[in-house]
Amino acid sequence: MTELTCDISMSLDGFVAGPDPTLEQPLGEGGDRLHQWAYDLETWREPHGLSGGTSGNPDAEIMAETVARAGATIMGRRMFGGGDGPWDESWRGWWGEEPPFHHPVFVLTHHPREPLAMEGTTFTFVTDGIESALEQARAAAAGRDVAVGGGAEIIQQYLRAGLLDELQVHVAPILLGGGTRLFDGVGPASLEIVRTVESPAVTHIRYRVVR
Amino acid sequence: MTELTCDISMSLDGFVAGPDPTLEQPLGEGGDRLHQWAYDLETWREPHGLSGGTSGNPDAEIMAETVARAGATIMGRRMFGGGDGPWDESWRGWWGEEPPFHHPVFVLTHHPREPLAMEGTTFTFVTDGIESALEQARAAAAGRDVAVGGGAEIIQQYLRAGLLDELQVHVAPILLGGGTRLFDGVGPASLEIVRTVESPAVTHIRYRVVR
Repeated sequence: MTELTCDISMSLDGFVAGPDPTLEQPLGEGGDRLHQWAYDLETWREPHGLSGGTSGNPDAEIMAETVARAGATIMGRRMFGGGDGPWDESWRGWWGEEPPFHHPVFVLTHHPREPLAMEGTTFTFVTDGIESALEQARAAAAGRDVAVGGGAEIIQQYLRAGLLDELQVHVAPILLGGGTRLFDGVGPASLEIVRTVESPAVTHIRYRVVR
Repeated sequence: MTELTCDISMSLDGFVAGPDPTLEQPLGEGGDRLHQWAYDLETWREPHGLSGGTSGNPDAEIMAETVARAGATIMGRRMFGGGDGPWDESWRGWWGEEPPFHHPVFVLTHHPREPLAMEGTTFTFVTDGIESALEQARAAAAGRDVAVGGGAEIIQQYLRAGLLDELQVHVAPILLGGGTRLFDGVGPASLEIVRTVESPAVTHIRYRVVR
């Protein structure tokens, strides 16, 4: 059965992006540090078209597992980028001509756009809401799981709708002191710890959402 | 060397107490669930004068270790209780005649009060600030560590002053959706993961504060 999952890096004080995001610094001040644990991993670098990197550590295994599980990704308009309002179709995402997903991606937006086929990844723009995006992503995932990529608002929408099955939080050992909170407007709620993986760089905790 | 440490249970969304605390429910709505992992442990029940309980699991070991490390505790006025303003000296804390600390406790307050000696624990009321409380607690800890008990405001004061050495966060698998945030007004800051202990009930992460 295809599950709806989410993998996200969060600071210990609950932020998934720092304050004052800009076009040059889309994760806000200090937000890059959330993902510091991943940048050196071969399993992160390879889908991003970069060579080298470390392997054989718990972080690398977690990253490989996350990549292998997902058959489709759902993301919000801002994660795809290109500003607000009707599309400037010259914007083709942040990731260059070969995006790191290598599976179908569904972008939630209020503004229609034709599907965008890139090397290994086709972006489909969904204007009729989170349930429709989930249905389309499930059909496209070929039996694998559907991942909610972010940002926080989209994750919150799926949590509030009771549609998320699993949530893996990579708790980064930093305090950002401000920014975008992962759980704004969600809860009270209960989770069930599925697994905790220790690493010197980050703490990986996988939860099942209790409904 | 005596270190300043803090052990605290926090919800995954960053709260150490739920919304709307009252005298009957000092941890706010749902706040009791933060400590659910501890209530059944023999190592929690024994210092609280309760018999029975589970043992031999990671949570029990963490609790025993925490109890053994601390030679003195510093807490805020609200954690000791009894309302705001000048002391009603009939208030002798929440814990009955044998408080669970069994070591000297220093209560930060703006209102002077004579030391209060109870079974196994003497409460000293400190009106000249967090550094004075730390100095007095260090002298009283007999070579063991000094624990900051809480609440959040006091922990934040010690963090902002750069006085906290270690912070162990027990991340409870719940979202409270509101209440008192552990890290309000703290950060940006970096931590170093010292150790992560997995349990089905809670995730124990010990951090060293980087200065």
